[in-house]
Amino acid sequence: MQHSKPHKSWKDQLHEIIYEADTPSGKLFDVVLLIAILASILLVMLESVKSIDAQYHTFLNISEWIITVLFTIEYVLRIITVRKPIKYITSFYGVIDLLSTIPKYLSLIFAGTHALIALRALRLLRVFRILKLARYLGASNHLASAIKSSRAKISVFLFAVLIAAVIFGTIMYLVEGEESGFTNIPKSVYWCIVTLTTVGFGDIAPVTPLGQFIATIIMILGYGIIAVPTGIVSAEYTKKANDDLKSGPIPPHPNEPIVHLNSQCCANCLNEKHVDGAEYCFKCGCKLHHDK
Amino acid sequence: MQHSKPHKSWKDQLHEIIYEADTPSGKLFDVVLLIAILASILLVMLESVKSIDAQYHTFLNISEWIITVLFTIEYVLRIITVRKPIKYITSFYGVIDLLSTIPKYLSLIFAGTHALIALRALRLLRVFRILKLARYLGASNHLASAIKSSRAKISVFLFAVLIAAVIFGTIMYLVEGEESGFTNIPKSVYWCIVTLTTVGFGDIAPVTPLGQFIATIIMILGYGIIAVPTGIVSAEYTKKANDDLKSGPIPPHPNEPIVHLNSQCCANCLNEKHVDGAEYCFKCGCKLHHDK
Amino acid sequence: MQHSKPHKSWKDQLHEIIYEADTPSGKLFDVVLLIAILASILLVMLESVKSIDAQYHTFLNISEWIITVLFTIEYVLRIITVRKPIKYITSFYGVIDLLSTIPKYLSLIFAGTHALIALRALRLLRVFRILKLARYLGASNHLASAIKSSRAKISVFLFAVLIAAVIFGTIMYLVEGEESGFTNIPKSVYWCIVTLTTVGFGDIAPVTPLGQFIATIIMILGYGIIAVPTGIVSAEYTKKANDDLKSGPIPPHPNEPIVHLNSQCCANCLNEKHVDGAEYCFKCGCKLHHDK
Amino acid sequence: MQHSKPHKSWKDQLHEIIYEADTPSGKLFDVVLLIAILASILLVMLESVKSIDAQYHTFLNISEWIITVLFTIEYVLRIITVRKPIKYITSFYGVIDLLSTIPKYLSLIFAGTHALIALRALRLLRVFRILKLARYLGASNHLASAIKSSRAKISVFLFAVLIAAVIFGTIMYLVEGEESGFTNIPKSVYWCIVTLTTVGFGDIAPVTPLGQFIATIIMILGYGIIAVPTGIVSAEYTKKANDDLKSGPIPPHPNEPIVHLNSQCCANCLNEKHVDGAEYCFKCGCKLHHDK
Repeated sequence: MQHSKPHKSWKDQLHEIIYEADTPSGKLFDVVLLIAILASILLVMLESVKSIDAQYHTFLNISEWIITVLFTIEYVLRIITVRKPIKYITSFYGVIDLLSTIPKYLSLIFAGTHALIALRALRLLRVFRILKLARYLGASNHLASAIKSSRAKISVFLFAVLIAAVIFGTIMYLVEGEESGFTNIPKSVYWCIVTLTTVGFGDIAPVTPLGQFIATIIMILGYGIIAVPTGIVSAEYTKKANDDLKSGPIPPHPNEPIVHLNSQCCANCLNEKHVDGAEYCFKCGCKLHHDK
Repeated sequence: MQHSKPHKSWKDQLHEIIYEADTPSGKLFDVVLLIAILASILLVMLESVKSIDAQYHTFLNISEWIITVLFTIEYVLRIITVRKPIKYITSFYGVIDLLSTIPKYLSLIFAGTHALIALRALRLLRVFRILKLARYLGASNHLASAIKSSRAKISVFLFAVLIAAVIFGTIMYLVEGEESGFTNIPKSVYWCIVTLTTVGFGDIAPVTPLGQFIATIIMILGYGIIAVPTGIVSAEYTKKANDDLKSGPIPPHPNEPIVHLNSQCCANCLNEKHVDGAEYCFKCGCKLHHDK
Repeated sequence: MQHSKPHKSWKDQLHEIIYEADTPSGKLFDVVLLIAILASILLVMLESVKSIDAQYHTFLNISEWIITVLFTIEYVLRIITVRKPIKYITSFYGVIDLLSTIPKYLSLIFAGTHALIALRALRLLRVFRILKLARYLGASNHLASAIKSSRAKISVFLFAVLIAAVIFGTIMYLVEGEESGFTNIPKSVYWCIVTLTTVGFGDIAPVTPLGQFIATIIMILGYGIIAVPTGIVSAEYTKKANDDLKSGPIPPHPNEPIVHLNSQCCANCLNEKHVDGAEYCFKCGCKLHHDK
Repeated sequence: MQHSKPHKSWKDQLHEIIYEADTPSGKLFDVVLLIAILASILLVMLESVKSIDAQYHTFLNISEWIITVLFTIEYVLRIITVRKPIKYITSFYGVIDLLSTIPKYLSLIFAGTHALIALRALRLLRVFRILKLARYLGASNHLASAIKSSRAKISVFLFAVLIAAVIFGTIMYLVEGEESGFTNIPKSVYWCIVTLTTVGFGDIAPVTPLGQFIATIIMILGYGIIAVPTGIVSAEYTKKANDDLKSGPIPPHPNEPIVHLNSQCCANCLNEKHVDGAEYCFKCGCKLHHDK
């Protein structure tokens, strides 16, 4: 069907614009969508401020409707241009796209907007779809891999921090008691994490000398062990950078990822992560479009 | 006695299940025990919340009894299957196991449960026994050794922090005086550590201009010196990783520890830390069981 | 005109003193100017303290006039000694210099000094002009380049932190509600950043158990991800230091920057950043003065 | 005079005990002195707690007199055993030793003990004399040199932080105004440092939306730039460790400093820092005593 480049169906052309970011029109679409998403988030935030909502209610309402209509059009186009609509609709992003579109329609039926904010806030998750753009920054590649290989170690570390928080939390509950605000063990553990992470709200604070002494130990512990995750990421990152230097010839563009994944999305199976220059989808074998 | 593999006594088989984590049944036992310990901790936490305790008192009480019975059975089995019960009973984990089992029985005699919470909280220490499982994550080996070799330096650093806290605490006591909440030197030193570690509860805060100026110095000091432990761990960790790279041929599975300690536990002397493939306990010479 | 060294016009000599820091008189001028700027900032700060202003009003007023006159003289001299005054006046520092001089004159016309503080505070920006002196410390060269190459990664990181803050802020708004101080989403996001960055003012704090549980997650997240920017800068800095070690022969003075930029400033086009030993401005070709 | 080892005068023997830590008796003296200093600090701290002072006044008073008498004896012995008493008395530690001894005597003449606490707190400075013992830990050598070479960079960094604090402090003063607690610019700058360093007391917190927005920027800035000092120390420390690995043959005891300074102190000129095995003081040429 799509063998000859110049004669593409309008569906394929739309697919390219909506699902891919390699072509100028595809990039433009993504940027417009990103702005629309950020604007919709801003609207949710502003609407929650009572004084602003009271003054600009009509403006916010109209803007919300404009964005809802835009999202509806986008959702419909996504269903039309994809070859397997059911697969898209039931996919993670398909559900998110739907849920971030319908709250305004639901508000026509149900009066209380408060409960629908949770749904509207889901729009933020759509940002991650656009963030494939971030790949082009070519910046966070070593970083991502350093974080990935640090994950197991940091999990072990955080588990140890949690155990320490539970132990110290129980001790503080027994030492300080209810009159100081340490009303139960979960609250005491909460306070302990507030202290260990050096956040220190001060909504609860020890008042007895012994409690303050134990708090001192917790704080110094928290201050000392922050070195651990930092040291891990720092060392992993240094290692990644060193490995990169050693591994054979220096890559032509040192800022680019070594395996350059492009932003193409198969029109058939919605599979992404195609290697640069791929002609066919590596999952379903369907032909990919590219104009580069 | 245990020379032929197929004919093991039930005691030996139980020993393998309870004390070792190499066999499937041993691993299962450890996982079940871990869940029981975490559930028992959760019970202690929930019971301390007045509103929950009032509503679900019977449920919490029954759950507590079930776990207490489970712990009792485990404790008895541990005594039976080990060859030197006295050694186990008087060992660190033996005492912890007993202390985490008896509080519920004691609550039958003594009415006040509050004082027994401290004993029940000791159950958390049992987690560390199970954490030998964490060895199989193969993640925290470099980390542990990096922390170990940083220990002396971090101690010197923390000692210097403590001296600074005492000096600045005394100065703040003299500058701010009692009306600002700096009622005595220990409290002032406590505030100083709260500030140095960047926790900053705000329960006590300087009010005089001079006090705020000194507080500024303390904060910048605390903000600056957090670099020191971080730098130490980071550098040590990098060094460990480098040493590993240089030391002879690259190990086949770079994520595995170089000396693979297994989780076997000698049935005679309770000695652990046997090297993989060890046939006899390196301490008492007694034969070890393994089915691998 | 300036071909023979001994016969320089007074304009050129003044230019050398005011715009360059290589000669003793130029350095002296910069140090005096730095002291004047810091003194002027101190005056603005002290004047804002009501009790001090009430007691020492006349002294502060006279000092402010002395510094204003000094800044006026400096501004006039800068215009006279430069060859293209319009270029200087419309340059960034030219505007800053003017704006930091006129507030006191304006206070003669307008009575309310409060609004003019903003203008006077702009004087602080003049410090950055003097900070070219910092180059002679020879200290922050690797550091600056490490920060520069970390910029993109840290931006991506901060963007991710912001998204997390918006998501968690919306959740906290829905969970905690208005009675806990989470009156609207922007405020809730503000609280979320206060918590993620481990600042923890405590002006708003969660009170419901679920809110405190989510706060715990936010805090541990904030405590864990601080490792990321630290790891980046640390690794980049190590890399810069390593690159420096490898690149050809060891420089004669390891503490000096490799390309030694001097502090000369072209009298014609105000261009700075001339390489050491440069005879002519690399932008306009005009002869540079130096006595070294 | 002291040519033959066995026949030392009692003065020389005392000098060796008091001023040096190489001999067993010298080490013992230092440990006893350290305990006495720590006890004296503890006494100052406990005395400041009203409830403890009321209950144990006599005990604290007697303990204070015992320690004062011990310090007096030590002070007199130090004067006697040194060859140039005037030099010791006028030296830094000589003055500290005197000042930490006399407060109790002065309290006989002057009734108000409060003012004398400042003098007594000076005793803490004596700890640094004993801390030459820390050298024997052999731990903080790389660390000290890493901190030393990071000093200039960290100073530049802290200066930049201070400028940022003044700029943001002035902005917050203008934005928030006096009703939010930002009563004057110094206080506003103080708040800004509290926020930048992620301490966050919460005694002052922004209440206007714009103020909270600027606070968000300050917090993210503070959270991001903590990476800078950490990166510096981390990289410097890694560099020191690497330099050490490369420099010729591996030292026999890698934990020992390369130039082993001993704790001997010249009896004539009080000069310390003699190289191990030194026979004569490198400053005054006087013979040193050692029994090793």
